[in-house]
Formats: sequence, structure tokens, C-alpha cells
Amino acid sequence: MSERRGHDLGLHRVLEPEGALPQAAQRLDAESEAFDNEIVIDVQTLNIDSASFHQIIGELGRDEDKVAERVCSIVAERGKMQNPVTGSGGMLLGTVKAIGKDYKGPVELKVGQRVASLVSLTLTPLTIDRVIKVHLDADQMDIEGTAYLWPSSPIVAMPDDLPERVALSALDVCGAPAQTARLVAGQKRVLILGAGKSGMLCAASARATLGDQGKVYALDLYDTNLKLLREAGIVDDFRTANARVPTEVLQAVESMTGGELVDVVINTCNVSGTEMSAILPARDRGVVYFFNMATDFSRAALGSEGVGKDVDLLIGNGYAHGHAELTLKMVREFDVVRSRLESLTGEG
Amino acid sequence: MSERRGHDLGLHRVLEPEGALPQAAQRLDAESEAFDNEIVIDVQTLNIDSASFHQIIGELGRDEDKVAERVCSIVAERGKMQNPVTGSGGMLLGTVKAIGKDYKGPVELKVGQRVASLVSLTLTPLTIDRVIKVHLDADQMDIEGTAYLWPSSPIVAMPDDLPERVALSALDVCGAPAQTARLVAGQKRVLILGAGKSGMLCAASARATLGDQGKVYALDLYDTNLKLLREAGIVDDFRTANARVPTEVLQAVESMTGGELVDVVINTCNVSGTEMSAILPARDRGVVYFFNMATDFSRAALGSEGVGKDVDLLIGNGYAHGHAELTLKMVREFDVVRSRLESLTGEG
Repeated sequence: MSERRGHDLGLHRVLEPEGALPQAAQRLDAESEAFDNEIVIDVQTLNIDSASFHQIIGELGRDEDKVAERVCSIVAERGKMQNPVTGSGGMLLGTVKAIGKDYKGPVELKVGQRVASLVSLTLTPLTIDRVIKVHLDADQMDIEGTAYLWPSSPIVAMPDDLPERVALSALDVCGAPAQTARLVAGQKRVLILGAGKSGMLCAASARATLGDQGKVYALDLYDTNLKLLREAGIVDDFRTANARVPTEVLQAVESMTGGELVDVVINTCNVSGTEMSAILPARDRGVVYFFNMATDFSRAALGSEGVGKDVDLLIGNGYAHGHAELTLKMVREFDVVRSRLESLTGEG
Repeated sequence: MSERRGHDLGLHRVLEPEGALPQAAQRLDAESEAFDNEIVIDVQTLNIDSASFHQIIGELGRDEDKVAERVCSIVAERGKMQNPVTGSGGMLLGTVKAIGKDYKGPVELKVGQRVASLVSLTLTPLTIDRVIKVHLDADQMDIEGTAYLWPSSPIVAMPDDLPERVALSALDVCGAPAQTARLVAGQKRVLILGAGKSGMLCAASARATLGDQGKVYALDLYDTNLKLLREAGIVDDFRTANARVPTEVLQAVESMTGGELVDVVINTCNVSGTEMSAILPARDRGVVYFFNMATDFSRAALGSEGVGKDVDLLIGNGYAHGHAELTLKMVREFDVVRSRLESLTGEG
């Protein structure tokens, strides 16, 4: 059998443009058989990035067939699931089908093991053979398909004490709670914008880090999750407001803090136009963390300048050491988070 | 005379969409006479953001008339100079024409004083009456026009020991050198990507902060400025490479450092597709600072995740305390920076 040596960063899968890394590529080769440094995964579930999934639903409506068709056409065209509008992907759940002889990944794996890729679908060569079911409320799609990962791609063995769909849903955003834990350490006031999946996990992470030494505030358009977080003691106070209206958000925050600004703002909204709503409530030399794929770089940079705010603006890196472990810990330790994830994923 | 009270954040100038802040607005009202909390400026020079100016030149060619026409049509349509493709603006130089009775700005000003606005043109109500000259190499346009600023907008009195065009050109990017000084403090290896105006100022700032306690490396497509920076002792070493080809950049950096990654990367490129070239050379838990309006948020977030890099990704905030002072200091202290700015702005 001939050698099929692949590149450490997956360059061997890039079709165009030449020299691009897989994430920046317009098209990946998902048709070629496995290279020697790859692991092959039988894919069972795609967890689509929230901003991407909502963009698709926003365009096509809550129609399972149409959503499935759109995802399949993107994957067929690009060799990967990368929404051309939002630029974002998601992650996948599946079973190890084969391990190349040169594959040296971040964790020990064996054929037949259940795994989730912690690398974005935007750089994962993927083919879809069949769609089984679209879960509109969970941003998930059950499929039959094949994906390939090389050694630099984070991957995790699925935990056996949590429903798989719940674990996958949490792992999809695991960079955010891990980075929240770092950013809020030693701070007094934290604001979580958005109380969806990422927002709940980040709020839990902030609470776990701060204990009773700091206040965790939250804001969302709806109060369902906010009330549950408040009852569970994860957040100290909350308000409902439209995160696209910065002046409304600032007013709501000041009504919680007694007029003070906050040390850290975690923006987990999955809609565009929320940059200034995250920047205005931050104190001088505070930190604003954007875990929202709909964030516009120049709106954040120029918006902050425009109001003379000297704050650190952080792009939500999807990777942080220990991010999977920390996030699953939040799901295990905070019942309300687990039960909300169960209900969102239809496992409740 | 009737009261014309304006909003602290300039909401009184927003035409659409309703409730938006001026930077996010599609259209500003630049036609109404001054409000009581505004300062009125007779505009003489627009300094267009580099990414924006290059996008326009890239589309229309190096034709002064066509560039002028495009800028005028954007300003006429939006009531501000915000390039719809890059989202970015620039800044302006002019003379104080009038000061509203409720204007309480960041510095003491009087009518007739020469000033530069340190707030982006993307939120500055502006009308252009006449274009006098387009300076293609300086990203500048001399005009006759009028602009309005409210109290939260940073503004600076022009220094009298530097040519105005040189000072303006440096002040346009003054957030970057100020933040570079903070980020590199105590670090050992710094990489400056791009050796244009921002890159030179950031390299100077890194050198001023580090002295001989750390290495400053630089990379650009061309070596003109790199050689000058090297001769002046501002950078320790440099390479030429295409910042859009991450693997080429990584190789070039490792050839300078003897195979090591760097602590801080300052991306000052003014082209798109350079996110991964800034991320790959950064060490584990290093910092990547994007002062490049062509940066794509999700490409940075997902790209970093895609290669399993645990680094802090910072959006280049245009504002930092003391940014104007620090940047002018770099121009005064480093002759090579001053002479390059003089030559770029035609003052040499």
C-alpha cells in the first residue's frame, strides 16, 4: 500500500485558494480517502454554530427540509460546513472509524470510540450521505457522513455520564466558559449579555470562579433562562432588554449596579449589532469579551474609539487549555444548566 | 435664540436606523446647524483609514479624481466618511469654527485653534463643499468642509513642533503604538507584521518599551522600511514575506528567532486574510493584537481554534489613554519614523 502523507495543518486537503490554511480555504477536498496522519470519523450529529443556524433559519424559516437542504448544499460545494454569510461552522459527534498510522492526536483514541471534534466544522473535511433529522431548537442535525481530522485538531472522547446530545451542545461553545473563568478572576462585577447556551455556561463559570466575592449580572431579550439562573443563585440580578439597542442596555445595567459600570462584559449574543451594547457598560480599562460570531471587527474597534472607551476588546478564541473539561464540569455542577441543555436538545 | 440640546453620545445626529449610535448608523444628519453641545470644525484635511483608502484605490485605480468622487459620494449619502466595504473611516484636521455653550470636551479649546479629531470619521457628521487635492500616497484628501463633534469624542490640539500633515498621519493610528507599549512590557520577543505607518510606530513603541531587554522582529512584503528600521536599531531583524500566506510567515519568523515562537504579535497589515499569519507565530498563551481594519472576526476566532492555539486575540481599540501624546513622542524620538512619515505625506 502506498504512502499517503498529510500535512500537520491539513494543507493536503485544501483545493483553493492554493497555500491557504483549511479554515480560510474556499473549498476542501473531502472526497479523497484518508491520509496517513488522519483519523476518520463516522459522523452522526452536526452541531451547527448558533449564529450560522439562526442566519439559515432567518432566511428559510423553521422548515427542517429546507434547512437540511441548505446545509447539504454548503457542504457539497465547500467540502466543509462553513456558512458563507456568517463564516462560522460548528462541531460534530461521531465514532472513530479508522486511525492513520501517522496520526498523533491530542488524546488516546481507539476505533469504535465515541468522539466529538472540538475543531470548527469550518476546517473539517466533511461529506454528508444522508440527513436523518434536523433539530431546530438544538441547532443540531443528525446525519450519516464522514469527516477527517489531522493531529493539530482538538478532539475529545465523549463522557459517559451525560447524554451525548447535551455534552455535544455544551462542548460546541466550550472556549467561552473557560475564558470567562480566566477573565473574571479577582473582579467585582461581571455582565453576561445573552442567556442562551453560551450565556448560561459563562454565567455558571463566572459564579464558580467568583463565589460570593463578585456580582454576576445578566441580560437577555427574554426572561425564561434569566429567572432560572437567578433562582439557582448563578446570577445576582438580571434585566430584559434588546442587546441591539446600546443605550437601553446601558440603562438596564446601571439599574442593576446602582449606576456603576462593570469590570468584565461577556457578549454571548448570537445576533449582529451588539458590539456597543457590550462596550458601553464596561468600566475604564475593563475587559469586553466577544463570544459572538456575528461580531463585526471594525464596529467594535471604531465604536470603542468613538465613545473614548479605553477597554480591552477580546475576540472569543474557540480554544483554551482544559476548555472541554471545565465546560462539562459546569454542566455537571449546575443542575439548571444541565436541565436547560437537556430541554434544548430534546433530552429532557 | 432657541435651545438646541444634543445627546452626550451624539444620538441627535442619527437619521437611521432609529436608536442606533452614530457609528452604527447608516446615515447621519450633517446638514443641521450646530447643537449646543457641539464643536464646529472647518475641515481642511481628511486622513482616510488605510484599509479603506486601499480598498477604494484597489477598485478605482490610482486616479485622484475618481477617488475624490467616491469619497464625496459616500459622504453625501451617509453624512459621514464610512467606507461601506471596509466599515472604516479615518480622522480629520481643521480649525475650530465655533464652540457650543454646552460643549465640555476632553481638552480646552478656543475658536481659531488647529485641531485633529481623534474620533473616527465613521461617527463624525461631515459635509464636503469642495475637494482641493487627493494625496494618494498619504491616504489624505485636502477639502473644504464642515464637521461636528460632541463631548465624548476625543480631540487633540495640533502640536506646533511637527508638520501638521505628519502629526495628523501619526495621530490617525495612535491607538496602536499606545497599546503596543502596554502589551510588550516585560516580554522577550515581539513580532510586528507590516512595516507601514502603523507598523513603524508600533515597532518604535515596542523598542522604546523594551530597550535591549527584548527582541523586536518585523515582516513586510517590501524591505524599504524594514531596512531603515533595522539600521536605526528599532528592529533587531526582519524578513520579507507575503502576510497572506501564513505558512510562509511562520517559516520567516522561525528563521529569525531560531525556531522559537514569539510572545506578542502586532498585526498592522492593511489587507485582508492575514489573521492566521498573526496567530501561527504566537507562542502558547501569547497575545495577538489586530490593528488592521481588514481583520475578519470569525476567521481569527475559528482559525485559532482550528490549530489548537490558546492565545489572547485582541481587537485594536482606536482609543487608549495618552495615545496621542505617546504616538507624537515616537515621531519626535525616532528620526527614521519622522522622516518616513514626512516622505509619505509629501512633507519630506
